Amino acid sequence: MKKQQTKISNAVIRRLPRYRRYLNELRKKGVDKISSNEFSSLIGYTASQIRQDLNNFGGFGQQGYGYSVEGLYNEISAILGLDREYKMVVVGAGNLGKAIVNHTYYYKTGFVVKGIFEVDPELIGKSINGVEVMDYEGIVEFVENNNIDIGIICTTKEVAQEVADRLCFAGVRGLWNFAPIDIETPSHVAVENVHISESLHSLAYHMSRATDDKK
Amino acid sequence: MKKQQTKISNAVIRRLPRYRRYLNELRKKGVDKISSNEFSSLIGYTASQIRQDLNNFGGFGQQGYGYSVEGLYNEISAILGLDREYKMVVVGAGNLGKAIVNHTYYYKTGFVVKGIFEVDPELIGKSINGVEVMDYEGIVEFVENNNIDIGIICTTKEVAQEVADRLCFAGVRGLWNFAPIDIETPSHVAVENVHISESLHSLAYHMSRATDDKK
Repeated sequence: MKKQQTKISNAVIRRLPRYRRYLNELRKKGVDKISSNEFSSLIGYTASQIRQDLNNFGGFGQQGYGYSVEGLYNEISAILGLDREYKMVVVGAGNLGKAIVNHTYYYKTGFVVKGIFEVDPELIGKSINGVEVMDYEGIVEFVENNNIDIGIICTTKEVAQEVADRLCFAGVRGLWNFAPIDIETPSHVAVENVHISESLHSLAYHMSRATDDKK
Repeated sequence: MKKQQTKISNAVIRRLPRYRRYLNELRKKGVDKISSNEFSSLIGYTASQIRQDLNNFGGFGQQGYGYSVEGLYNEISAILGLDREYKMVVVGAGNLGKAIVNHTYYYKTGFVVKGIFEVDPELIGKSINGVEVMDYEGIVEFVENNNIDIGIICTTKEVAQEVADRLCFAGVRGLWNFAPIDIETPSHVAVENVHISESLHSLAYHMSRATDDKK
């Protein structure tokens, strides 16, 4: 795999998983090649946007030939770091924690939940999709002993930063945070703060515009 | 409220909920005014970006004075359409459906879940946070009779489009979709497709970059 030379903008990075998802659907349907125009009508970005985005990575398409679906899928996977396995722990075994464990379970490969941590004695000792719910007190030792890469935070916002600090101390390299605050991490630990309600607010905006437009 | 004159880019719209969240924290702390520089160090966008974004709405700040926290919070809320109440139904009472009902429950105002719909007879008749789980067969009638605005799709990807079609037929004006496909809707129905795994892929990218940078 070619190493990219320059830093790619966050906006492009955010579009890559979407490209990859559509390429995966095409792969499954047995499609070999796709032109940027065909890809455009499928994915809803302009053909010029697609060419510009993919040129960031050296441009995998050939003039008059289009993109190799399998080739582009593999390249984007590698760029995203999805050509390896990530070991994860979940903190918080409430509905959200359970939903995330179920969700990641269907990935089958790439991201594997190795343990779930809780403070509630009623939940400790149970299991979700075959993964044990353990006492939060033992999390540092578990992360160290099992080379955990990612911590998934499904706690209340009140304790989320404290949980993040402990996970960073234990040695994770990334945090996927679902608590409704922006978690802060040392610079060597990547973080994605998922704010579910922001997409609801965006929906409300588009709904009110649609109504206004009709007036 | 002033009506905006021009169409605002989606990228700006996506930043507004974040501005609003930070303004809400400031309000709660009793902060009256904030300069774009202070706001910048808090929220992590450049001061020029902030001024540019807010200029889209006529610019609420005054030179040498800064932004009124309460005023800007209210304006952004109105622009996002958050100055009214939305009635919602959830389809799918699995872990994800439960997590979403719990999550929206804490909004207290603005977005209210009126009913949850399921096909599983074991779940029908139960309740989640005081909201009844009902038979999916009755969803069209319920949406019509209760003037439901938003349908929240927490089903498998196999049935998600069919559920969306039924909700649109019943008269919702917006769909918040958590099934891992892009739902299609008629042009008068707004849709937000939430792809949780895309943020995980983005995290993986930043983790692999962080590792490469250390080499």
